Amino acid sequence: MTITIIGVGLIGGSLAISLREQKIATTIIGVDNNEANLVRAKELGLIDTSMPLEEAFAQSQLVILAIPVDGVLRLLPQLLDKATKQVIMDVGSTKEKILELVKDHPNRGRYVAAHPMAGTEYSGPDAAIPNLFLHKTMVLCDVKHSDEDAVEIAEDLVDKLQMRLVYMNAEEHDLHTAYVSHISHITSFALALTVLQKEREAGRIFELASGGFESTVRLAKSSPDMWVPIFKHNRNNVLDVLDEHIHQLQSMKALLENEDYDSFYKAIQRANKIKKILK
Amino acid sequence: MTITIIGVGLIGGSLAISLREQKIATTIIGVDNNEANLVRAKELGLIDTSMPLEEAFAQSQLVILAIPVDGVLRLLPQLLDKATKQVIMDVGSTKEKILELVKDHPNRGRYVAAHPMAGTEYSGPDAAIPNLFLHKTMVLCDVKHSDEDAVEIAEDLVDKLQMRLVYMNAEEHDLHTAYVSHISHITSFALALTVLQKEREAGRIFELASGGFESTVRLAKSSPDMWVPIFKHNRNNVLDVLDEHIHQLQSMKALLENEDYDSFYKAIQRANKIKKILK
Repeated sequence: MTITIIGVGLIGGSLAISLREQKIATTIIGVDNNEANLVRAKELGLIDTSMPLEEAFAQSQLVILAIPVDGVLRLLPQLLDKATKQVIMDVGSTKEKILELVKDHPNRGRYVAAHPMAGTEYSGPDAAIPNLFLHKTMVLCDVKHSDEDAVEIAEDLVDKLQMRLVYMNAEEHDLHTAYVSHISHITSFALALTVLQKEREAGRIFELASGGFESTVRLAKSSPDMWVPIFKHNRNNVLDVLDEHIHQLQSMKALLENEDYDSFYKAIQRANKIKKILK
Repeated sequence: MTITIIGVGLIGGSLAISLREQKIATTIIGVDNNEANLVRAKELGLIDTSMPLEEAFAQSQLVILAIPVDGVLRLLPQLLDKATKQVIMDVGSTKEKILELVKDHPNRGRYVAAHPMAGTEYSGPDAAIPNLFLHKTMVLCDVKHSDEDAVEIAEDLVDKLQMRLVYMNAEEHDLHTAYVSHISHITSFALALTVLQKEREAGRIFELASGGFESTVRLAKSSPDMWVPIFKHNRNNVLDVLDEHIHQLQSMKALLENEDYDSFYKAIQRANKIKKILK
């Protein structure tokens, strides 16, 4: 099958590697508004060729949008306008606004809303890696509004990429990702800013940084081009979880201020229950 | 050299492995108030033998305290009372209170205050691993108050373990670790509590958890036995950094509330500067 990938960065490029490896794609066409990314994607062998969107779209059975969610919002309606037999998937991190936008489109059925729970803090075609999606979770949202054959193509892709498939509605998806993905990025950005700020007065501060620090701060390397649109789309959920997180930090601070170490101990014990989730 | 390790958990056990491997230790004696840990440490081959502290101390050239910092505070003065030629090191995560406590002890010179910037979120002898310290940073604090031969033994150990050596005073150490280690643990505990709390109303929330979440939350598995004494010892610094971190989160929240996405973008760009620190 000929597949067009719009956005040949970390996610689009890694998808290209896996789609080729799993023999889902016979030809991969890259589309990107950054010409340098297309050149690099070809050099890296991620895509076979590149061409203008319209042309690529006409030749493809599957078109995957792997661009920031504000880009999906802009492009998806135009693609649906032109869709005949093509299946269009996105892989964006928010879903409610996108699905709301196209819900009454006459070709809505050609679209499958997808979100692979995989990524790294890097971006661009050079960040593309094999096996990024292996054994990770793929969320398909509101599939009841997608055509049967479109869902089958998406499910087959999930299956061949050896991903775990989860069905969800968009509302649930955006709530859950706020809690297990979006907030992690905000805390990481805030922690980086906290420490970078302090570095100005205490220059040697990073000399002692080790694995624990790196672990909690690595997401702060993530691209604002990707993340600002996510926070914008999922603003209400992100504000809710941010409120709760600030509240938890303030509670821990109060315990420390009051030197209530017994309660602090118990709070850590409650937090330790995260062991049941993480290996 | 015969070395006694007090506390045969993650750090003490991992030290035992490396001290033996690097032929620094000929015999390793384990001391632990948890008998099961001693049995397990022997089974795992971490220690050669175990015996009561007094007996072990008398036979050793080097005694390493690898227990929570409140334990160091309790034991160190007693060990110094008995010290003749022994060198006593601790590997605790805070230094000011400990050094303050023993500063006028007649045998103060036998003690070297050390802190290896290495660890994992696990604890106990089964968490001990080879190479935990390889290429990590070891901080030695206020070495000018330690005897020359004691510092030499500590430096030789750092060298043979292939660690990077940093000298600091205790005040600097406690400030810096608050920023690059202690706060990471607090944000992780608070994030775990935030999400665990939400799970009660939205059961499937962890289905979508992936690498980013795991990265920011893994420290929340850390033991309260180790961490409450650290927060207690380093309370003022931890409160300062916690204040600043909450302030950063509140600023990001305000930008989102005001839908000031340009400033939000710039804040993320500033946070991205953490790239210069992390590989």
